[in-house]
Amino acid sequence: MLRLSKRSRYAGNVIEEVDYLANRLQASGKKIIRLNRGDPVAYFPTPRSTINAFIRALQQADTGYSYHAGIKELRTEISKRHKRLYNLNIDPDSITVTEGVSEAILFLNSIMIDEGDKAATFRPYYPLYLSALNLNGGRMVTADYLEDGSRVVDTDALRKKLRNGGKKMKYLIFANPSNPSGSVIERKELKELVGIANDHDLLVVSDEIYDEITFNGAKFTSITEVSDGVPTMLLGGASKDFDATGFRIGYVLITGPEKETAGIKDRFDKYTEMRLSSNTPAQYAFTAALQDVRGHEASISRMRKEIEKRANFACKLINESDYLNTAIPKGAFYAFPKVDFGSLKFRSDSELVIKLLQEEGVQLTAGYGFGSPDHIRIVTLAPQDILEQAVSKIDKFLKRHSR
Amino acid sequence: MLRLSKRSRYAGNVIEEVDYLANRLQASGKKIIRLNRGDPVAYFPTPRSTINAFIRALQQADTGYSYHAGIKELRTEISKRHKRLYNLNIDPDSITVTEGVSEAILFLNSIMIDEGDKAATFRPYYPLYLSALNLNGGRMVTADYLEDGSRVVDTDALRKKLRNGGKKMKYLIFANPSNPSGSVIERKELKELVGIANDHDLLVVSDEIYDEITFNGAKFTSITEVSDGVPTMLLGGASKDFDATGFRIGYVLITGPEKETAGIKDRFDKYTEMRLSSNTPAQYAFTAALQDVRGHEASISRMRKEIEKRANFACKLINESDYLNTAIPKGAFYAFPKVDFGSLKFRSDSELVIKLLQEEGVQLTAGYGFGSPDHIRIVTLAPQDILEQAVSKIDKFLKRHSR
Repeated sequence: MLRLSKRSRYAGNVIEEVDYLANRLQASGKKIIRLNRGDPVAYFPTPRSTINAFIRALQQADTGYSYHAGIKELRTEISKRHKRLYNLNIDPDSITVTEGVSEAILFLNSIMIDEGDKAATFRPYYPLYLSALNLNGGRMVTADYLEDGSRVVDTDALRKKLRNGGKKMKYLIFANPSNPSGSVIERKELKELVGIANDHDLLVVSDEIYDEITFNGAKFTSITEVSDGVPTMLLGGASKDFDATGFRIGYVLITGPEKETAGIKDRFDKYTEMRLSSNTPAQYAFTAALQDVRGHEASISRMRKEIEKRANFACKLINESDYLNTAIPKGAFYAFPKVDFGSLKFRSDSELVIKLLQEEGVQLTAGYGFGSPDHIRIVTLAPQDILEQAVSKIDKFLKRHSR
Repeated sequence: MLRLSKRSRYAGNVIEEVDYLANRLQASGKKIIRLNRGDPVAYFPTPRSTINAFIRALQQADTGYSYHAGIKELRTEISKRHKRLYNLNIDPDSITVTEGVSEAILFLNSIMIDEGDKAATFRPYYPLYLSALNLNGGRMVTADYLEDGSRVVDTDALRKKLRNGGKKMKYLIFANPSNPSGSVIERKELKELVGIANDHDLLVVSDEIYDEITFNGAKFTSITEVSDGVPTMLLGGASKDFDATGFRIGYVLITGPEKETAGIKDRFDKYTEMRLSSNTPAQYAFTAALQDVRGHEASISRMRKEIEKRANFACKLINESDYLNTAIPKGAFYAFPKVDFGSLKFRSDSELVIKLLQEEGVQLTAGYGFGSPDHIRIVTLAPQDILEQAVSKIDKFLKRHSR
């Protein structure tokens, strides 16, 4: 038996955990409703103009390596996007193009974390935040989302936990809007978080991959609008707002005093050097998608409205179940209901997810991977008839397994 | 100043080291001859049929996430390729698709290496082998390429160094054909290496990204043809043989006793889960390129002949310089001449590379990043007139800086 590293046991992603099983069931003839991956492309085709730009790049033979940190055209358009939407002035050289936000998170942790270091986040969190940290020997400190009407996150708990963090505490990371809970941290609380990070000399990492997908009255603020003078890393990309998950194009945008941030910018550059290039024609396609401001506004606003409708529809049905209870999301495209395990005969959320897949052919994601083992995550992107069918199957299944 | 991890100082890639400077010089109007990146696409357009398959995938809206370990169609075609070329029987489930070979190497090291572990390679080596190892706390043990007529690599030195390796020694890695030296390790020596790995309980990692690009009489053997019963990892991909560097599609193929290799296969799967998917339409394009067996044979044999001609032409010119001496490569598309630093006024190969870029506009790669600081690497893919111009500039430059 080959001896594997101790760290490697932390690898994995709960979202994909039962994919192999789902594929096997599907191959054996079972119909599977997949509500595990947050992939808008499955229901909203990538805009035609983006695809045409991709095709144009291929026809122009842009199929070789490109500059490791991303083509200049794309970094310039990303800079313009953040000027347009958030009035940010940023040099394209402070932006690094990555193979999705995932690569950015893996690099971030390798760059910042030594054995025994720590980072902080809010629970529930996106699974990779924890696994990428653990893979580099780090430990996560968490405070909770509250959604108590006056506060979205528990900043008091965060302050308390940071008090003992010391020099080993490196950064605060959160997704805004949140995957999986759909919470949106608005301006006042974001400012408070920046203040806390500043007090503890932490990098603020704001994953804004869903920044244009907010609804139900939420008012989105980008971290760069309130982080003046504090080192900040913003993560974004083509996947969600631009409906192009399969392109694998994300970006890292670093702001704050040059003296503070020069080192980390340089390291991001060096990490991208190691893998030479990200997908070249996809970068040109994303460049064109960013240039087509009006076209994008039209498609994102159509998509946003539809996502809002589907999310609210799904949440209404979910809350009609005796065993599920979810807050109404304000962004992204997930519901993250709490499951009344006390009334059910499951030992864990994992067991629930596997049995639901086997018995009803509905694929969800277990909450434990988001730090909240008494929950399940449901992607709410599907059309209403599929959502209705899925939630009805889930409810029937839960009834059958009640105590 | 944000505190960065100790490990992160190892990140970087000598091949890209002066790219930023080259871009700045180019932007200021200087003409740059770039012979630093091994990118065949720059001189041999990606085959039309591959591009058409990419376009087809885009038109069929294959732009969303795909299975984390790679689409089944692609893994099946990779399996068939290795049956066709090397008579290997391998289950597509033992193949993982990665974002280039680079991602595979980064994952390999995270999966195998704990702080203080070791790996072995031959010098000169591909730079990422060392940086990815160091990033995970590992140290490299090296033996040299010999090319003494009877032996390509110094297996005696390797044996000696492994004797002190103990349980911390995890794997033996090499590129065959070699980047940068163009050496090809043939069947008899490969068998010997497999035996050595077996004696020391090491995984054999054979990077065969250039496997169809051998010439000057070399007879290529794939590691899987001689590694029966020994755990082996083969790295391959679309970039070089299939002339599609900008797609970022590589693969990992693991063979050997299931009992020995099940763990590492599972970990590779889990690592790919973390980043959800590699570029989806590019996977369909590579699938089609693999299916078009005749078309590929025609284009690779044309490319191989041209590469052989250019490599031999470049090496002849290089060896006419009083300050350079290179072996004739048998594969890949690089020359890696030794530089007579004793007769020159440079403190290092890095200084030589930077000054050459500034004074003559020729971009090469310093040898130190390959473990051989008295060398430079020259990509020999360009047409003869460019190679002639470049080598003439290099020679003039070296004369000017002689003692």
